[in-house]
Order: sequence, then C-alpha cells, then structure tokens
Amino acid sequence: MTTLTPIAAPDAPPPAGHYSSGIRANGLIFVSGQLAIEPDRTPRADLDFASQARLALANMLAVVRAGGGSPASVAKVTAYIVGVEHWPVFNAVFAELMGEARPARAVVPVPELHHGCLVEVECIAVAGGE
Amino acid sequence: MTTLTPIAAPDAPPPAGHYSSGIRANGLIFVSGQLAIEPDRTPRADLDFASQARLALANMLAVVRAGGGSPASVAKVTAYIVGVEHWPVFNAVFAELMGEARPARAVVPVPELHHGCLVEVECIAVAGGE
Amino acid sequence: MTTLTPIAAPDAPPPAGHYSSGIRANGLIFVSGQLAIEPDRTPRADLDFASQARLALANMLAVVRAGGGSPASVAKVTAYIVGVEHWPVFNAVFAELMGEARPARAVVPVPELHHGCLVEVECIAVAGGE
Repeated sequence: MTTLTPIAAPDAPPPAGHYSSGIRANGLIFVSGQLAIEPDRTPRADLDFASQARLALANMLAVVRAGGGSPASVAKVTAYIVGVEHWPVFNAVFAELMGEARPARAVVPVPELHHGCLVEVECIAVAGGE
Repeated sequence: MTTLTPIAAPDAPPPAGHYSSGIRANGLIFVSGQLAIEPDRTPRADLDFASQARLALANMLAVVRAGGGSPASVAKVTAYIVGVEHWPVFNAVFAELMGEARPARAVVPVPELHHGCLVEVECIAVAGGE
Repeated sequence: MTTLTPIAAPDAPPPAGHYSSGIRANGLIFVSGQLAIEPDRTPRADLDFASQARLALANMLAVVRAGGGSPASVAKVTAYIVGVEHWPVFNAVFAELMGEARPARAVVPVPELHHGCLVEVECIAVAGGE
C-alpha cells in the first residue's frame, strides 16, 4: 500500500480548509493551488499582477521545497489568471522565479479567484532523492 | 510497455462521450471530471450547491473505489465551481465526504459547466495495493 | 535523483515563453497546454471550433509522440473551451483523433483563451517503453 504523505510548508500560508498544502505520493509531489496570500494568510489582492504572481509562485515553491524538491523538480505548472492580458507579465515573473527550470505549463484564464486574487498556481513535481 | 487500464464504475454515471470514467496507469488513478449527475445520467442542476457538490464528489469517489482506492488514496483534487462565493459550502461538503483524508486541492472558478451544473470535480489518486 | 527530461516536439509549435512543450519524468509525460496554433506559431483563432480542436489536439499528440508515446499512452486530458455549447463538437473531434483510446478527461469552460483561441488541451501520458 502506497503511503500518501501530507506536506506542511512553514514558509507558505497554512491551509484554510479541508486540504493539505501538498501531498507526496508515488514519487510525485502534488501542490495545492496557491494564491497571492502572505504566509500569515493575509490576502494580497491589493498588489499589482506581477507582485501577486511573485507571491503565489513563492508559496508554490515553498511547498515544493518542504516536500524535498526545488524549481528543477517541477514537472508541470497550471496557472489560473484573471485576464489573459496578464500572460506576458506572468511569463516574465515565472522566468524570474523558476530560473533555469522550464517545466510543462498551462495558463488558464478564469473569471475570478478566491479572495479577489488575480492569479493562482499549482504544480506537480518529482519528489527529490528518489 | 506500461498498460493503461480503463476503470468502469458501476456506482457512477457512465461516460457520455469518448472517454473513460477513470484510467489506472503507473500506480495512479486518473478520474474524469464528475458533475452533479445521477448514476442513471440524470443531470441535477436543479439541486442547491451543497447537494450538487455531494453528488459530484460521490461520483468521483465511486470511480476511485472502482479503481481499488478510497478517500485516503486521493492525492489531488481539482474542483471547478461556478461562483467563488460557494467556496465555503464546497469546503464543508468536501470535509464531510473525505473524512480524515486531506488531499492537495485547487478550487477553480469557471463561468459555466456542462448541463448547467455548478460544480465539477476530478482527482488523481494512488492505486491501492501497489 | 529523478531526472526531468524536456521534450522538444518538431511537429508542434515551439514554446513561446518560459516552459517546455512537455516534460518526461517518473514514467509520465506532462504535455503543456496546446492551442490552435500552427507548428510555425501562427495562431488560428480564425478557424471554426472543430478545426481549432483538431489543430490543438494534433499539437498535443505531436508532443506525446515526441516523448515516445501515442494516443494509447494518454491517461488524462484536460480541455479548456470557450463556450460549453462546443462540448459535442469537441467530443466528436476528440474521438476522431484519439481513435480506440479513451483516456480520462475533463472539459472545462473558460471565459477566454490566449490569442483569442476557443480551445486549449493538455494531457498526462505514460512514457512509452517503461
């Protein structure tokens, strides 16, 4: 029986509902949707799009790191954005935070997001050391 | 060559198009998007949000169970909801159906769903017994 | 340490941002969101929905094939469509391109897509020969 291991990420906002920040299972890390929320759970819908993207991606990478991974471990990112016109800015911030890593990616426009945020990101990474 | 095994789930609505209810592959179970549809395929867009969420999640878990899993096997859930204001109710119903299990999760607002439903859920689970 | 292998797909449009067309990792192939864009990167939002779906799915399958897979290797497809009324046409084109293969699938309505396209598809496949 494969074990699912919840990931608690001290540098990302703790879950606000019935879910884990991440799950490690079968050699993979599944990271929950991360919004532009400070680690103390203050929503930052007041920030501009670039700053929201930086914060959401930092939260995502904090969960990946807590699971033993790094940007280089990230296989697939799904980004939900409010307003497809933000695509170029999202891409620039993504390059900034991912560095050399170029995972598979989908950018999905949505009508709205929780707490009025403009961007949410999730990913599947490979568990480090396996 | 890894084999993909389609999952037929007697307790969930059968597929209405060119897809399988679920696929078992590489130690994982991939569950197709499940709407608020009765196992006899009657759409229940007439129900309130909580009842739709309960039905969609029951369908999802029926596919997981048919693949050999349980709520504890679910690694990641993606929920598409029409109206982010339903987030708290979705979370409460999710807790009710998942019990102790707290998978990774993303809740994604969308403008509409098939058959006029308000919620659709899909998941990736770990295949039991492996 | 598991290696992530970027997939370059000569028969699909090259990435237009900081991502790879696909990533092979842990026995899986993760394919980036594919739009109705010609392999030379000309967006084809001018086409009708069926033709856009055919092009986007052809791009997706080109990445799967470049990663060593085939339609039979595809475990899960997520399709984002603008206008849920296109569901039946999407399903018909999907059947046409996937043939015998019936993966798990979710069709997710969205308000808009990049370059004004009406459909975007992504998938997770099993890496061939493993």
